Amino acid sequence: MKTHLDCIPCFFRQALAAARHVGADEKGQKQVLDKIASIIPSFPLTLTPPEMAKKIYHLVAETLRVDGDLYKNIKKRSNEYALSLYDQLEQKIKKSKNRLLTAVELAIAGNIIDYAANTSLNLDEEIKNILQIEGETIKKDQKFIFHYDDFKNVLANSKNILYLADNAGEIVFDKLLIREMKKTNKHIKITYAVKEKPIINDALIEDAYQCGLDKVAKVISSGSDASGTVLSICSQEFLNVFNDADMIISKGQGNFEALSDAEKPIFFLFKVKCQIIATTVNGKIGNAILFYKK
Amino acid sequence: MKTHLDCIPCFFRQALAAARHVGADEKGQKQVLDKIASIIPSFPLTLTPPEMAKKIYHLVAETLRVDGDLYKNIKKRSNEYALSLYDQLEQKIKKSKNRLLTAVELAIAGNIIDYAANTSLNLDEEIKNILQIEGETIKKDQKFIFHYDDFKNVLANSKNILYLADNAGEIVFDKLLIREMKKTNKHIKITYAVKEKPIINDALIEDAYQCGLDKVAKVISSGSDASGTVLSICSQEFLNVFNDADMIISKGQGNFEALSDAEKPIFFLFKVKCQIIATTVNGKIGNAILFYKK
Repeated sequence: MKTHLDCIPCFFRQALAAARHVGADEKGQKQVLDKIASIIPSFPLTLTPPEMAKKIYHLVAETLRVDGDLYKNIKKRSNEYALSLYDQLEQKIKKSKNRLLTAVELAIAGNIIDYAANTSLNLDEEIKNILQIEGETIKKDQKFIFHYDDFKNVLANSKNILYLADNAGEIVFDKLLIREMKKTNKHIKITYAVKEKPIINDALIEDAYQCGLDKVAKVISSGSDASGTVLSICSQEFLNVFNDADMIISKGQGNFEALSDAEKPIFFLFKVKCQIIATTVNGKIGNAILFYKK
Repeated sequence: MKTHLDCIPCFFRQALAAARHVGADEKGQKQVLDKIASIIPSFPLTLTPPEMAKKIYHLVAETLRVDGDLYKNIKKRSNEYALSLYDQLEQKIKKSKNRLLTAVELAIAGNIIDYAANTSLNLDEEIKNILQIEGETIKKDQKFIFHYDDFKNVLANSKNILYLADNAGEIVFDKLLIREMKKTNKHIKITYAVKEKPIINDALIEDAYQCGLDKVAKVISSGSDASGTVLSICSQEFLNVFNDADMIISKGQGNFEALSDAEKPIFFLFKVKCQIIATTVNGKIGNAILFYKK
């Protein structure tokens, strides 16, 4: 999908949050906003939001002369935090009457770990809520589009599965889902694709290794350094996997924004985090989505 | 209070909403955002948000070459809508065991009629909620700062009261409060001040007359054409009333932003509509505030 005009105020908000996150003083923060303002007139709105976000975050780092990995500490902490929950999450799946469904729900719930959309997120509280809910992990009124039966059927008939990661920390939830998927269909081969270079708190190869994704899947980089798997900047190696896959699972809003117009069938798993996406899917902010784009 | 950097993304959001409200196409909307982007580097952050908002809304009208009264139709409709509720609101006050308190609460509740902060507001639903709640108009957990005893005491000992209006529609709620204030203290003289020129959906002289405020108070213009009573641009006539008043009642967030540093004691009645103000009062968005700044 292309960038909406409503994304522009949001880019300013994100840039301000990022500048503050790396400790910029008010003068530095204002410099960042001025710099972004200066490029607004030449914004190519034909690009997807993840491509635009890439430009924005690069500009923040460049203006403040800081390392481009703005959320490095957050990513490490998110991984550690999610790993500390691993046993509880695993227990929740083990106790479930429908283990695959619970694992799918947890993987979507884990998508709340997002430092672009929600800069004041109280992760601990959200996760506690997830772990406390009896039975279904996601409250019924939050499930908006939920093509679980398709997910189960396609999984049962697939061999090569491509799983597109979103954020650090969240990837631990993905690991649990991948384990359940492999129990459901013992013949699948899963490739787990992360981003090529630092962008917001998106998972990189090092995060995948920190969280042991390499134990359950073949970990590769997509080649994309935007906050979504933008095919035009992906590596040929990745595109081969993408084209050959008979099931593609895409996590997060950024990947949805990048791939909603792709020609392959894709399962999009994400939490709705902004009004533009809410309008696109005809839902509400906070909705848990399992959308099978055929 | 001065403009925060967080207000900048919000100005873009407001400008986009205003451009859409007057029917600008996507090209026009983008022109508006570009124009605002071009003045960001020269933004004097020492000004208050209402002064900045004035520049923003003027720029929208100028860029799109439309009449500066962008929300004229909305204001008329808000007045008509609020007037249609008059009898129900009056009944709610009449049935109350504490009529003045209920009138104060309704006046604060009426502050939800705001087209700058909430561009997708469902007025009808909000008002229905207000009218349906038994007893107290504002739920207890929404009352954050509530200096009602001070309000009652100062009212009992005042003669000249200045009441600063906020939005069209909302002024009908003010009328009901003014009536109750005059029943509580029969010796008061009330001056009701509206904005000088169109700015967002702020009430003007014509709105005050449409809603019959002239029947309960002396209606004047403050001279301010910002979305708050910015003293430095107010008329001398208004400043005389301001200085002579022994009780000042200020409605809305814009007036709070403009007058929070004023040297006179002021009662601020408003709903918290953005995170910056929530942080300033140490509360939450949605809080109903009756704050006596001594």
